[in-house]
Amino acid sequence: MSQRPDTPLLDRVSTPADLKSIDDRHLPDLAAELRAEMIDAVSQTGGHLGAGLGVVELTIAIHKVFNTPHDRLIFDVGHQCYPHKILTGRRDRIRTLRQEDGLSGFTKRDESEYDPFGAAHSSTSISAGLGMAVASELQDVKRNVISVIGDGAMSAGMAYEALNNAGALDARLIVILNDNDMSIAPPTGAMSAYLARMASGRTYMGFRDVGKKLTAYLGKQMDRAITRAVEHARGYVTGGTLFEELGFYHIGPIDGHNLEHLLPVLRNVRDHADGPVLIHVVTQKGKGYAPAEQAADKYHGVAKFDVITGTQAKAKPNAPSYTNVFAEALIAEAREDERVVAVTAAMPSGTGLDTFGAEFPARTFDVGIAEQHAVTFAAGLASEGLKPFATIYSTFLQRGYDQVVHDVAIQKLPVRFPIDRAGYVGADGATHAGAFDVAYLACLPGFVVMAAADEAELKHMVRTAAAYDEGPLSFRYPRGEGVGVDRPERGDVLEIGKGRIVKQGGKVALLSFGTRLAECLAAAEELDAAGLPTTVADARFAKPLDATLIRQLATHHEVLITIEEGSVGGFGSHVLHFLTSEGLLDHGLKVRPLAMPDIFMDQAKPEKMYAKAGLDRTAILSAVFAALGVGGADSIRA
Amino acid sequence: MSQRPDTPLLDRVSTPADLKSIDDRHLPDLAAELRAEMIDAVSQTGGHLGAGLGVVELTIAIHKVFNTPHDRLIFDVGHQCYPHKILTGRRDRIRTLRQEDGLSGFTKRDESEYDPFGAAHSSTSISAGLGMAVASELQDVKRNVISVIGDGAMSAGMAYEALNNAGALDARLIVILNDNDMSIAPPTGAMSAYLARMASGRTYMGFRDVGKKLTAYLGKQMDRAITRAVEHARGYVTGGTLFEELGFYHIGPIDGHNLEHLLPVLRNVRDHADGPVLIHVVTQKGKGYAPAEQAADKYHGVAKFDVITGTQAKAKPNAPSYTNVFAEALIAEAREDERVVAVTAAMPSGTGLDTFGAEFPARTFDVGIAEQHAVTFAAGLASEGLKPFATIYSTFLQRGYDQVVHDVAIQKLPVRFPIDRAGYVGADGATHAGAFDVAYLACLPGFVVMAAADEAELKHMVRTAAAYDEGPLSFRYPRGEGVGVDRPERGDVLEIGKGRIVKQGGKVALLSFGTRLAECLAAAEELDAAGLPTTVADARFAKPLDATLIRQLATHHEVLITIEEGSVGGFGSHVLHFLTSEGLLDHGLKVRPLAMPDIFMDQAKPEKMYAKAGLDRTAILSAVFAALGVGGADSIRA
Repeated sequence: MSQRPDTPLLDRVSTPADLKSIDDRHLPDLAAELRAEMIDAVSQTGGHLGAGLGVVELTIAIHKVFNTPHDRLIFDVGHQCYPHKILTGRRDRIRTLRQEDGLSGFTKRDESEYDPFGAAHSSTSISAGLGMAVASELQDVKRNVISVIGDGAMSAGMAYEALNNAGALDARLIVILNDNDMSIAPPTGAMSAYLARMASGRTYMGFRDVGKKLTAYLGKQMDRAITRAVEHARGYVTGGTLFEELGFYHIGPIDGHNLEHLLPVLRNVRDHADGPVLIHVVTQKGKGYAPAEQAADKYHGVAKFDVITGTQAKAKPNAPSYTNVFAEALIAEAREDERVVAVTAAMPSGTGLDTFGAEFPARTFDVGIAEQHAVTFAAGLASEGLKPFATIYSTFLQRGYDQVVHDVAIQKLPVRFPIDRAGYVGADGATHAGAFDVAYLACLPGFVVMAAADEAELKHMVRTAAAYDEGPLSFRYPRGEGVGVDRPERGDVLEIGKGRIVKQGGKVALLSFGTRLAECLAAAEELDAAGLPTTVADARFAKPLDATLIRQLATHHEVLITIEEGSVGGFGSHVLHFLTSEGLLDHGLKVRPLAMPDIFMDQAKPEKMYAKAGLDRTAILSAVFAALGVGGADSIRA
Repeated sequence: MSQRPDTPLLDRVSTPADLKSIDDRHLPDLAAELRAEMIDAVSQTGGHLGAGLGVVELTIAIHKVFNTPHDRLIFDVGHQCYPHKILTGRRDRIRTLRQEDGLSGFTKRDESEYDPFGAAHSSTSISAGLGMAVASELQDVKRNVISVIGDGAMSAGMAYEALNNAGALDARLIVILNDNDMSIAPPTGAMSAYLARMASGRTYMGFRDVGKKLTAYLGKQMDRAITRAVEHARGYVTGGTLFEELGFYHIGPIDGHNLEHLLPVLRNVRDHADGPVLIHVVTQKGKGYAPAEQAADKYHGVAKFDVITGTQAKAKPNAPSYTNVFAEALIAEAREDERVVAVTAAMPSGTGLDTFGAEFPARTFDVGIAEQHAVTFAAGLASEGLKPFATIYSTFLQRGYDQVVHDVAIQKLPVRFPIDRAGYVGADGATHAGAFDVAYLACLPGFVVMAAADEAELKHMVRTAAAYDEGPLSFRYPRGEGVGVDRPERGDVLEIGKGRIVKQGGKVALLSFGTRLAECLAAAEELDAAGLPTTVADARFAKPLDATLIRQLATHHEVLITIEEGSVGGFGSHVLHFLTSEGLLDHGLKVRPLAMPDIFMDQAKPEKMYAKAGLDRTAILSAVFAALGVGGADSIRA
C-alpha cells in the first residue's frame, strides 16, 4: 500500500458546506489534494480513474458555488463521481469503492443525500434533472438543478429528447456539458465533430467575456423576452448554436480546469439564469496523472495499480475471457463470409469488436452510445442481405428493446445479438448486471435464444449465428474468464433447438442454460456419490426449446432442476410453460426452477453473488434434497 | 357505398414504372385522382386519413423520380403510406385496409417489395435507411435510399441518433423531412419550434434557388470537399442549420404540394448527392379534403365516414372505454392530491390525458415522441415527491424499457405506469399489440404489476396507484370498451398483492389476470352445468403474487387454469415458478397456463383474435376437459 498523500486542506472538508470557509484562491491546492487522494484510493480498489480526474476542479466549483444537497447535482453515468464522493461525507469509505458492502462505483440514491439521482447507464441526467426542476417549480421550492453530462453521452437519443423537452418547457435547468472528447473509446458521430469544432474554432471564453454575455442575456426577464422575440424574428438565417436552436442559453467553451473561469460563470448562472442553460466545459480525461493523460482509454477503468509507475496489476487469467473468445470466433466467421459485419454502441473494446475492427475496419460500425439506432441500423443491414452482429451488453440492450421487437422480430430479420455481460458482473453491481435478457427476448415470436455453457460452446454459437439466416437470434455469455475448456479452431453449426445430454443419470436431472453447467456437473458428482444418479443436460436453447430432450428428462427422472443466471420469466419459465401445457407435471415429477432471486444485487465478488443468489453447487444440492425430502444439503456439505 | 371516383390517369398506373409514361404536367391531375381514390377507400375502411392526404404529391414525385423498388423508399411510422400502396400494385386491395386478411394499415415487408422496411412505431426510418445505404455501398450496389420522416417523429431520440451516425458515416442517404407541424397532436418540443421558425422565417425555395444551391454544393466531389474544408475552418461561429451541424446537406423548406418544385429538387439530389442530404418539405395534413384540413387531429385516424359531409360513423359504445375510465379516475385522484401529475409521450388523446390536461394543464406533461425521456423525466418528478403517472401504451413502453429498469426500478422510485392498449388491439395489428409488458416488468425486483379485470377494477387500481408510494407500479388495461359494469364514483385502495375469489367452486379453478375474467365466468357457468364446480379468481397482481390465494387454489382443486392476454414469461410464468418452487405441483394438480400464442398476430376483429389465440371461453373449456381427460369441449359447445 502506498503512503497516503498529505492533504491538509482536504482534511478540513467533511461536507460541501466546509468549502465555504476555503477561499477561492486556495481551491487549486484543494484540487491537487483531492486528485492525489483519488489516485491513491483507486490505486488500491481499481475502478474508474480518468473520468474523475477530469472533473476535479468542476466538482469543487459546483459544490463551492451551489448549495448541495438542497441544490440537486446529477452526474451522468456516474463514473466521474469519486471526487464528489470524497467531498460529500464518503471519504472515509473511499477505499471500499466497488467492494462488497463498500461504496458503489456510481452515484446512488441509497448511499447519500448528495446523490439525488443514481446512474451508471449513460445520458439520463438531463431527463432526471428536468423532472426535478419542474417538480421544484410546481412545489414552489427554489433550487438549482445541475446535470453534468459528458460529450460521449450526447450521442444518445435520450439526451436529445431531454434537451428538446427542456427547451420547450423553459424550465430552470443547468446542464454542464463536460467535453473531454472521449467517453470510453474515442467518440464517433457528428455531434462529437460538432463539439470539437466549437472547442477548437474559438479560444476559451474568459470570465469577463462570459460575464458580459451573461449580463446581457440573463439579466431581467423582460429583457430576455425581448431578446428572444428579436431572435425569433430574425429566424434561423443567422443561425445559433445547435443548443441555442433547441432553446438553451449556451455558454462556452470554458476551460474546465481553470477555477478562475469556472467559479464566476457558475455564480453568474446561479444568480441570473431563469431558463435552461448549457455550459460547455472542456476538460482533459485523466488530468493531473501522467499515465492516465497519455492513455485515456487504458485508464478509463483500471485494476489496482502502482501510483508511481502507473502499472496496473491485472491478474494473469486462467482462461481467455468470453469476450475475447467471441471476438476470435467472429473474426473466423468474417474471414469465411464477407457478409458478416459488426455493430457496437460505443463499446468496441468491452465487446471485443476492437480486434474485429482492426481486421475488418469497413465492416465494423461504432454508432456511438445509441442502442436504439444500433439495433435498427443492424436491421437495415440485414434487410439488404448482410449478416450483422449487433454486439451489446445485456443491460444496454434494454435501451434498444422496442427496436428489437418492432424492427427485428416482427420483420423476422436475421440480426444476430451477441449478448455480453449476461448474468452477474461483480464490481459494477446491479446497474450492469445482465438479468432480464432471456425474459425479454424469449417471449418474442420467432426469436432464437441461446446461452453458451463454456467458451467452446460460445464458438459453436457464433458459427451457428453466422450460418442461421431465417430470423433473429441471440446468444448470451457472461463477463470474465471462461472455464478453460479446449476450444475448436472454429465452432460447429448447432442444430437449432437441440440441447445435449452432458452426463447420463437416472433419478435426478439438472437442466442448465448457460455457464451454470459447471456447477451442475460439480453437484452431480456429489449426488451420484450420495446414491442419486444424476443426469446433466445443457439446454443451449431457451427458444426454441428442445421438446424431445425436456420430455425425456421429465419422464425418466423424479426430480428436474432448471438453472440459469437470469430472472424469472426466462428459460425456466418457458420450460415450465411447456411442461404444464403438455401435462408432463400431472404425475408427480418434482420440478424446481433455480433463477436469479428477486433482488437487485449490489457489487461483490462473483462467487459471493452466486452463493447469495442460490445458483451454485450448494444451492443445487439443497434444491434436490428438499424436493426429495431426504437428508439435508447440510449433511453433504463437505 | 359512395360511387367510385373517376380516375382515368390513375387507372394507367399498376406499378411506379407506369409513372414514367405520364408527363410531369399531368401529375397534378394524377394527384387529384389519387387523393379521391384514397378518400373513397378510407371512407369505407376507416384508418389513417390526414397523413396520407398530406403526402400525395410527395409520393408521386418520389416514385416518378426514383427507381423503386431497386431504390429503397422507407416511410416513417407508415400511416401515410396509403397513396404509396395504391401506386405500388395494391390498389385492388386498398378497400381491405386494416381488415382481417387485408392490407396492413402500415408498410410491411411481407406485403410488397415496395415496402423494404416495415413500420408502425415512429422514428425508425433514418436508422433503417442508413443501414440499407451502408449495406449497398459495402456490396457495391448503386441505389438511392430515401427515408420520409415527419416532423413529429423528429422529437424521438432515435431519429437524432441516426442523424448523428449518418452525418459521421457520410453515407449516401436522402432524408425527406415531411413537416406538417402536426404528428397526431400538435407538436411539442424545441425541435418543432425550430422547424416552424425555419418554415416561417423565409419563403419557400423555388426550384431555381434550389437548383443553384445544389449545383454549387453537390457538383463535384472535389468541390464539395473544398467547400466543407472552408466551412469547417470558419468554425461554428457562422452557424449552419441544426442539420448541417450534424453533417447533412440541408435543402428547403420546399412546398410539398408543388410538383414543379419537388420534381427538379428530387432529380437534382438523385443525380448529384454523394453524402447525407436532408430535404425539408412542408405539407398540410389532410390536404385536399376540407374536413380533414380543418380538423387535422380528428382526421388523423378515422372511422368509416361520409365523403360528402365528412361525418364519421362511430358506433355508439355500449360502455365507456377503458381509456376514458382511466382519465376519469385519474382526474378524481388529482383533485384529492395535488402531487398527482401525468406524463404522455405525444399521445394525449389516445391515453385520455387530454381531458386530464384540460383540468390540470400545469400538471400535464407531453414530452413528445420520447418514451426514454418520458420515463426518466417521471423518475425525476417522483424523486422530488410528486406522484407521476407515466401513461404509455404497452407497445411504446418498450421504447423506455431501460429507463424503467435503470432509473425507476433500481432506484425504487414510485413512478406509476398506466399501461393502455395491453393485449390485442384489432385493426392496428401486431405492431401495436401489447403482448410483452407483463413479461418485461414482472421480472423487475420491487415492481408492483397489476391488470384490471373490468372498468371498476381499473378505478380501484388508479386509486391504489395514487396511494402507493413505496416503489414503481404498473397497471394494464386493454384498448376499447369496458364490459359495462357499474363503477364507483372513486375507486378503493387495494391491498398490494391480494387477489379475489369471484366465484367459489371446487374441482376446477380459473385464475385470471386482466379482462379475460369475463370469459372465465362464462366458461365457469358451463363447467358448473357440466358437473364441474368451478372457482373463478381475479389475480389482480402478477407481482407480488397472492401466495395465499394461489396456494389455496392449488390445494383444493384438481385443475388450475391461468389465463392472461400476454406472452409467456408473464403472469402464468410467475405463478408456475411459485407453484414449483413451493412444491405445490408435486402431487398431481393439473395446471394449464393459457397465454398469447407464440405468433405476431395480424389485424382482425378482436373476437377473432381471441379465438385464434385460444383465450376465449371455448379455449378455457377445451383446456379443462383435456386436463381432466373427460369429454371433449365439442360435446358442450351449444
